[in-house]
Amino acid sequence: MSRKVGIGLAGFGTVGAGVYKHLLGNADVIERRAGVVFDIRKIAVRDVTKDRGLPVPEGVLTGNLQDLLEDVEIQIVVELMGGIEIPMTFVREAIAKGKIVITGNKALLAEHGKELFACAAERGVPIYYEAAVAGGIPIIKSVKDAFVGNRFEKIHGILNGTSNYILTRMSEAGLDYPEALEEARALGYAEADPTLDINGWDAAHKAIILASLAYGFWISPEDVLVAGIDSLTRQDVRFADELGYCIKLLATIQSADEGLIEVRVAPTLIPKTHVLASVNGVFNAIAVRGDVVGDTLFYGRGAGQDPTASSVLGDLVEAACGLGNTPRCYGFKSHELYGKCLPQGRTVSKFYLRLAVEDRPGVLAAIAGALGKAGIGILSVIQPGDHENGPVPLILMIHDAQDAAMRSALETISALESVKATPVLLHVETFS
Amino acid sequence: MSRKVGIGLAGFGTVGAGVYKHLLGNADVIERRAGVVFDIRKIAVRDVTKDRGLPVPEGVLTGNLQDLLEDVEIQIVVELMGGIEIPMTFVREAIAKGKIVITGNKALLAEHGKELFACAAERGVPIYYEAAVAGGIPIIKSVKDAFVGNRFEKIHGILNGTSNYILTRMSEAGLDYPEALEEARALGYAEADPTLDINGWDAAHKAIILASLAYGFWISPEDVLVAGIDSLTRQDVRFADELGYCIKLLATIQSADEGLIEVRVAPTLIPKTHVLASVNGVFNAIAVRGDVVGDTLFYGRGAGQDPTASSVLGDLVEAACGLGNTPRCYGFKSHELYGKCLPQGRTVSKFYLRLAVEDRPGVLAAIAGALGKAGIGILSVIQPGDHENGPVPLILMIHDAQDAAMRSALETISALESVKATPVLLHVETFS
Repeated sequence: MSRKVGIGLAGFGTVGAGVYKHLLGNADVIERRAGVVFDIRKIAVRDVTKDRGLPVPEGVLTGNLQDLLEDVEIQIVVELMGGIEIPMTFVREAIAKGKIVITGNKALLAEHGKELFACAAERGVPIYYEAAVAGGIPIIKSVKDAFVGNRFEKIHGILNGTSNYILTRMSEAGLDYPEALEEARALGYAEADPTLDINGWDAAHKAIILASLAYGFWISPEDVLVAGIDSLTRQDVRFADELGYCIKLLATIQSADEGLIEVRVAPTLIPKTHVLASVNGVFNAIAVRGDVVGDTLFYGRGAGQDPTASSVLGDLVEAACGLGNTPRCYGFKSHELYGKCLPQGRTVSKFYLRLAVEDRPGVLAAIAGALGKAGIGILSVIQPGDHENGPVPLILMIHDAQDAAMRSALETISALESVKATPVLLHVETFS
Repeated sequence: MSRKVGIGLAGFGTVGAGVYKHLLGNADVIERRAGVVFDIRKIAVRDVTKDRGLPVPEGVLTGNLQDLLEDVEIQIVVELMGGIEIPMTFVREAIAKGKIVITGNKALLAEHGKELFACAAERGVPIYYEAAVAGGIPIIKSVKDAFVGNRFEKIHGILNGTSNYILTRMSEAGLDYPEALEEARALGYAEADPTLDINGWDAAHKAIILASLAYGFWISPEDVLVAGIDSLTRQDVRFADELGYCIKLLATIQSADEGLIEVRVAPTLIPKTHVLASVNGVFNAIAVRGDVVGDTLFYGRGAGQDPTASSVLGDLVEAACGLGNTPRCYGFKSHELYGKCLPQGRTVSKFYLRLAVEDRPGVLAAIAGALGKAGIGILSVIQPGDHENGPVPLILMIHDAQDAAMRSALETISALESVKATPVLLHVETFS
């Protein structure tokens, strides 16, 4: 005998429509595998008159979120609205009414996860959020459940498909950033307003969720170093390539000394031989290193209607099957084995530094002197061959250096008379 | 308040010792995250006097499996013995006594899964088996839970680390098969008796488990086409490379027409550009294509003490947290949307065919004629340049062809006077 479970969808945009479509289309496999029949009782939308090209029975569409909250037959609500304030109020009220919440809203969780999971635990109602990180890739279940016996050493992720598409095209086709962005827009890979994709914050929201889950305390956005891809040049992509690297918008999550956690999202040089370097186009990937499992990698589409819907379906089944059971946790468990982030200035990394300098003797000595004084070691210096008249490019690959020391040395270097234009400083990750 | 859960380990070899070691070493993270303290009450071993270099309290080691079954405080047994007959009896008795079973025994499940899961469902006791497929990679949880809303279109896996190491070395270092096997042995990647690794059956056991889970009926070993890597030559590895392919021991699981399922494990040419081609050494990887999620890939160490222990720890926590709850299923649910395998002769694939032929006019015409008569199309013909005197190698890349037709044409070809030595026929997978 199958169990009928009433659900409500809040939001009927791209992902919401995907969930609806596949819940209908794959109802048979879901019922046979899990013994659950989902009854979509209400779908809250902004405009009930809009034609969505999907057959929705009369009385299901509503313009009022309260209709979902007040329907006692709705046991699970799926929040796919976007934005932060309205979803926050909605999710809080749903929890208060004892409804299980499924959300794909990374910004909501990154900003208010701490409060929401506290509400959930207090009320004894789980929140599921596989769709919030890396679309169809089951990284939340893997970190939360499969790797529960591991201490996490490092997690590296390519978590934003739009920026990865742009970087892939800059690298493969030699496009400039604005051209590649325009192409991504034309293909529907970048939204009308791609700000969060480009400035790193979409990836940072996902990194915050992953890091919080891995280290058992809710990480605050202020503790995350975030840099976007919007100031990257074709030139740096090419120089990186010549040095054996490619540039990815990489999320780095790791435990440093004294149990301090580092979370960073920034354009980063990674060796072309590393498997993450071959993650191209709109795909996402996450490399997880646990002290027991060792190195693992997860790869798939990180966004889009169908992959994200797949994660919501998985959460719906888990939630429905858990009804009446005591859940292990309510989606996130604070465990107090860690609890603080490394101050941003104290993070340590290798760097790629590109300068535009006068082409005359003594210049390198002055730069090397400034770095040496700051205790920063140089791995190699490269002067790319082909350049026009005027200042010449000079690339320094820098040994592990503290962020604060590096930036302070950079100020000194920038002030040198022989250094023209603003230096470009990028992280380098060698996955050692 | 943490819950104390009594467990028993049956088997204390490499993986069993790993589970023990990490249960002790990571007891704090497990307790904080899951609220569970595991009490290892009994460990059944063949020889209780053997020193294992691990501190085991007095009275825990036992030479008698009955001690685990009769201890009413043991709620979960972990079967890591190897072999089939003794584990089968043990698991059946454990289920009869209402104990949850965790096993890493792929041969046991591949041979007797149908019966064991029927026992488990009847008694209402789940079996967990993440450790049975691909070591530390959470592929069972992903296929069973995360992708529950998907119809599976294709699953491709590199599921045996030993053979993948050998193939990697044949390809990278140009070693012959016996040399590469010897090296794998010296490094501990191949056991004293590597038969099941080499002949494809270890990978086939894992493929059977994955395919059964994906398609909801228990697949019988007789329905699986299995070929090993032991007759591969350095020559074929090199020719494949020249054609843009590498050779992997590939498990192919897919739904064909009429809902028939195909499961095959065989050395297969895959394009060097596909991500599975870069899975080298002892690593495993599984590419899953679902109708909702699209293409995904999972990568990690497929064997060894620690990765496999990680999967057992994940299962232990899931099992412990589910105590007292109604599980969604008992590890495997027959769902009757599929139910039959494609007869082996009817499977369709591209092929690589290497012949040794006399170097004279008319030979190719005779071969092409035999293929044409069987309705088999040729994609390309290559005659590699460098060869010694005598018969010359001739390679044909064959269009999609039915297995039976291909093998029948091959008989005709082998009987040609101009064809010397036994032809080499390998599958080609282009992942279209």
